[in-house]
Amino acid sequence: MAWGDQDGSMPTYAADLASIQAAHQRIRDGVHRTPVLRCSALDAMAQKSLHFKCENFQKVGAFKMRGALNAIRSLPEAVRSRGVVTHSSGNFAQAVALSAQVCGIPAHIVMPSNSPEVKRRAVEGYGGRVVLCEPTLAARESTAAALVASTGGELLHPFDQDEVIAGQGTVGIELFEQVDGLQAVVVPVGGGGLISGIALAMRELNPALRIFGVEPAGADDAARSKRAGEWILQTAPNTIADGLLTSLGERTWPVVRDIVEDIIVVDDGEIRAAMRLILERMKILVEPSAATALAAALHPDFQRLKGLSEVALVLSGGNVDLDKRPW
Amino acid sequence: MAWGDQDGSMPTYAADLASIQAAHQRIRDGVHRTPVLRCSALDAMAQKSLHFKCENFQKVGAFKMRGALNAIRSLPEAVRSRGVVTHSSGNFAQAVALSAQVCGIPAHIVMPSNSPEVKRRAVEGYGGRVVLCEPTLAARESTAAALVASTGGELLHPFDQDEVIAGQGTVGIELFEQVDGLQAVVVPVGGGGLISGIALAMRELNPALRIFGVEPAGADDAARSKRAGEWILQTAPNTIADGLLTSLGERTWPVVRDIVEDIIVVDDGEIRAAMRLILERMKILVEPSAATALAAALHPDFQRLKGLSEVALVLSGGNVDLDKRPW
Repeated sequence: MAWGDQDGSMPTYAADLASIQAAHQRIRDGVHRTPVLRCSALDAMAQKSLHFKCENFQKVGAFKMRGALNAIRSLPEAVRSRGVVTHSSGNFAQAVALSAQVCGIPAHIVMPSNSPEVKRRAVEGYGGRVVLCEPTLAARESTAAALVASTGGELLHPFDQDEVIAGQGTVGIELFEQVDGLQAVVVPVGGGGLISGIALAMRELNPALRIFGVEPAGADDAARSKRAGEWILQTAPNTIADGLLTSLGERTWPVVRDIVEDIIVVDDGEIRAAMRLILERMKILVEPSAATALAAALHPDFQRLKGLSEVALVLSGGNVDLDKRPW
Repeated sequence: MAWGDQDGSMPTYAADLASIQAAHQRIRDGVHRTPVLRCSALDAMAQKSLHFKCENFQKVGAFKMRGALNAIRSLPEAVRSRGVVTHSSGNFAQAVALSAQVCGIPAHIVMPSNSPEVKRRAVEGYGGRVVLCEPTLAARESTAAALVASTGGELLHPFDQDEVIAGQGTVGIELFEQVDGLQAVVVPVGGGGLISGIALAMRELNPALRIFGVEPAGADDAARSKRAGEWILQTAPNTIADGLLTSLGERTWPVVRDIVEDIIVVDDGEIRAAMRLILERMKILVEPSAATALAAALHPDFQRLKGLSEVALVLSGGNVDLDKRPW
């Protein structure tokens, strides 16, 4: 079944190169143009030239800053001034808090009451207002809805929203400018906002570029969805890659279905080993979710593919609890 | 007492801008031009603009590669072909091994028998031949001397040798090219090769630049030497900064005495905290010896100095035993 055959028209994806370029202009003074690093020892292991796009160096330590800032700056002035609301216990919470601070508007962040103290303090450190709720999705959603009603703030979704996806797509524009001759890019997949944005930028910038996702075995809904040809939700995820627990969304599934070539699945042992390799050989800290990209590049399922000697790996974030030692 | 008054002439230091520029040409295809990173969170803590020169990203994970490669490539062909010898249990051992491998000559590295297995394997991984000896300085020196006699190889000193100091000085040339308007640079001090090279480059490139060293309290011979106005050797060093245990040498003490403005002394608690801050905020891994530079920038003895708003910190290396958690 081809996409779009219900009404006979082409499907409209969440973003296109024009909207991603507009996002790039909109956010460029508020985010880092992150470097692309190389490592000869890891190249030798992978038998490829690997180009590491370091979103662990991004503001708030993760690519989420791009989408959050683009979504907030895309709001009409009258709406934006009332503030924003989201529910997240991860990097998107910090990204919304800092983006709102940059824009001079309030941010109300719903977090489950069992969130680590350090994450709550990080959000508050960026000027966000933390509102605690019971640790269930239903409680998170109803608390956020109540805050929208009481504050008039705009609800932001961490990935399933066009402006957020366009913002994440700016990683693709930078990669295209920074590395010549790329043949593939490997992107960690949680909700799919990052890979969707990159894929939608690249299919116009460099249509020959092959787009691969990577998922942990304990949260492999995108891999299963692609195999089944239908959108399957993740239940009971279980992995060290705590940024990749969620299911694809309505806006991201069509992109993964149509434009992403394949999803590589790696296990937690491979993720830990990759995280340690990156720290030991490259001297940079990435979170387990980001280390999946190197784990994929080293995985037999990727190694057996032909024609992939120049490969970009998106290191999506670097927020790690240093009181533990996950590698 | 002014320097050089014994024979009435100017003293000759280990290097000058010409010899450092020659080193820069000699090694540039074999070392990384390391990036200078910024971090707004650490700027806010230090109340300064900090420019982090990332030698932790250098080949073998430390600046030592520069001096080792310059020393080996400076040898006459007939001498070089016989190989090189050194004694070291640290980064210089790896740097000599890799430099020799690059030049296609043998490297004999004397290491104490109690060196960690991982360090021996690293040297062997770069093609070096490890020769174990009793863990005393006398045994190291006599073993190295015996290897020089038996192989005809050239003995390389980790810091107290002009070509090594000129090689380390290339960090100064790069910093000068990479950052405009610098007012000071802070450099970790062990044997003093790195700070001497940088100081000797900068006194010609930018004579107004203020050069500061930093030492751990448990190995503060340079600070005590400067205070006393005479060369004092370190006995029984004790610090987590295991790259900074040695005393200044004959070639480095005059530079520290005459050109370095002051040595900041930091304790191991401050070093651990700085190492963690760099990992947490910048997402990069540095060894404790390198973290001293940030500890110095945050130290009251440095904070009370006037006119230092643009400061470079040299992150000298990133080789950390990841099975421990030193922060």
